Amino acid sequence: MSLNLKTYTKHFTNPLYLESGRILEPYDITYETYGTLNEDKSNVILICHALTGSHHCAGVYEGDRKAGWWDNLIGAKKAIDTDRFFVICTNTIASCHGSSGPMSPRLPSTQPYRYKFPVVTIKDMIKAQKILLDTLGIHSLYAIVGGSMGGMQALQFATTYPNFAKKIISLAATHATSPWAIAFNKISQEAILQDSNFKNGYYESEDIKNSGLAGMAVGRMAGHISFLSPHSMDSKFGREYRSTDGLYELFGKYQVELYLEYNGHNFAKWFDPLSYLYLMKTINIFDLSRGFDSLEEALSHIRCDLHLISFKSDILFRADEMKHISDILANIGYKNHSYTMIDSEYGHDAFLVEVDKFEHLIKEILQD
Amino acid sequence: MSLNLKTYTKHFTNPLYLESGRILEPYDITYETYGTLNEDKSNVILICHALTGSHHCAGVYEGDRKAGWWDNLIGAKKAIDTDRFFVICTNTIASCHGSSGPMSPRLPSTQPYRYKFPVVTIKDMIKAQKILLDTLGIHSLYAIVGGSMGGMQALQFATTYPNFAKKIISLAATHATSPWAIAFNKISQEAILQDSNFKNGYYESEDIKNSGLAGMAVGRMAGHISFLSPHSMDSKFGREYRSTDGLYELFGKYQVELYLEYNGHNFAKWFDPLSYLYLMKTINIFDLSRGFDSLEEALSHIRCDLHLISFKSDILFRADEMKHISDILANIGYKNHSYTMIDSEYGHDAFLVEVDKFEHLIKEILQD
Repeated sequence: MSLNLKTYTKHFTNPLYLESGRILEPYDITYETYGTLNEDKSNVILICHALTGSHHCAGVYEGDRKAGWWDNLIGAKKAIDTDRFFVICTNTIASCHGSSGPMSPRLPSTQPYRYKFPVVTIKDMIKAQKILLDTLGIHSLYAIVGGSMGGMQALQFATTYPNFAKKIISLAATHATSPWAIAFNKISQEAILQDSNFKNGYYESEDIKNSGLAGMAVGRMAGHISFLSPHSMDSKFGREYRSTDGLYELFGKYQVELYLEYNGHNFAKWFDPLSYLYLMKTINIFDLSRGFDSLEEALSHIRCDLHLISFKSDILFRADEMKHISDILANIGYKNHSYTMIDSEYGHDAFLVEVDKFEHLIKEILQD
Repeated sequence: MSLNLKTYTKHFTNPLYLESGRILEPYDITYETYGTLNEDKSNVILICHALTGSHHCAGVYEGDRKAGWWDNLIGAKKAIDTDRFFVICTNTIASCHGSSGPMSPRLPSTQPYRYKFPVVTIKDMIKAQKILLDTLGIHSLYAIVGGSMGGMQALQFATTYPNFAKKIISLAATHATSPWAIAFNKISQEAILQDSNFKNGYYESEDIKNSGLAGMAVGRMAGHISFLSPHSMDSKFGREYRSTDGLYELFGKYQVELYLEYNGHNFAKWFDPLSYLYLMKTINIFDLSRGFDSLEEALSHIRCDLHLISFKSDILFRADEMKHISDILANIGYKNHSYTMIDSEYGHDAFLVEVDKFEHLIKEILQD
């Protein structure tokens, strides 16, 4: 069967009540679907994306070359089999790929929100997704799968809407963002704020579209360090030096520097700076135990089959952070969960680039 | 006895021939001494400083409040006992604390070198130090001790001048800078270059003296991540949030963010940007095996007692990198060496802030 890729943007006129007490109204959610919804609507899988991801998680757009970010995992006969499942992925609010974010017009004005956009939480993000699913007549899910910030959303679904999904798979995430991860985000934030072309947030998207902000590039380079690991850098780059550069040239470059430059500057061209600042804040303040007396109490609400997948060399959201969730669940006697640490040297990036190391696991979980 | 702290700057008119083939001529070396040189000049210990360190490693200047960077380790009755030893610490060339660097005047002009300053190597740094010692009539050393970039210098002394020092102690260093460490330096480099006040290197020191470059601050924040560790950040900061900030304020701050801000902006006020770029390059291109067929061959030249000290949670120069040197020495049957990994959660910073964890070791090594 074909992938049956469809992209939509839905406009909501009802207010979205946020955790902060603020209201988002109206708002848009852009989402993508693959496969076909079955008659009793029992074959729906929701995919949740990471910080810079989008609703485009599988397939290739006409005229495009790059596939969706989890294309290795999602499609006909793949681990998340679109011949069997109806897969939905929404662009989170505060992002910049179609859903409402800080650069959306603040109606009735045509001017963007900028700093008037509310800070949203992971809980707000999943609430918006649930409302979207409601309007599609989907009131329960077969599964939710997400990695990194998407894995946070998956965990939040498990505690906030206990009877909504049958199975939840959270990869490369954490129960609460560590100061270590916050520190990396801080570099990005500071690098953006100090860039004079950012104009303290009053830049015009048009003006920075072609080359991107240098501050975004620097910040993303720091991000890329946190996505890799010392060992993955050793094997990926070693001490290889660009052959045309002199060793004693001040700006002669190692391969690892070229990698960071390329990815940093490329990123700056396709991601909005204010969205980046807002989403980093969303990640920083993520804490699954907020609103509960303890993480244990939060986790005691879980009713789904919860599967936790970590990556051995992930230094951003460490394996021991995922293990901590599993340990608590075991402690409170919650049987329907599993914890697997994938032996990977690829660091945090593994959830995107080493799909072959965990696709069998996803397939197995989604078997019955 | 008193510390007998004395600070000097020595002017050299002979050319310093550098590894790059370039020449530095004339040049200055600023250095500091503590204790008293004994009659047969057999009690000299050379201290080598890290990237942003200086010759001021012990004692407090009159009217100053802050002690030298290794004051806990060096002084009367301390592990490096100035009642017994004559201690010398020189500011490395390319630094900005008195020795010749990129902002020194390029004689006969009064204008600074800037990019005309040559890239120097660790080997160049120790050569300059050896020349200084020669002019002081000191032709052999009792010991050399250094951490981080200072540990690199200590290792380079061991291979380049095998019969010069009796004992060499290298802490928190590596045999060759890893891509991981180079990546962190890259963030600093890029953040500085993109700062419009850096003026592509043609800034006036006077203009940036008071507030410092924002790009330097951002770069140093990245540095501080690499000096700590995920676990040290957990225990040092946790998820503590500034009590006066709202959780949903976009720029509300976690304690770890305040720590990075404070240290980043503070650093920018007292360190020169071009010196920083040059010294990061020096560190990036450090490779003890350069000029030899292998690291093994380089290490086979060692004749001193070599003591390697690493820190368990150091993510910048990892314990396994120091262990690698020890393994090779064991392999080639070189007995006069030791390797100790200090159990610390303080990351790379431990060599500066957890002196109490290794001072007994230094004391023991310097006993006879």
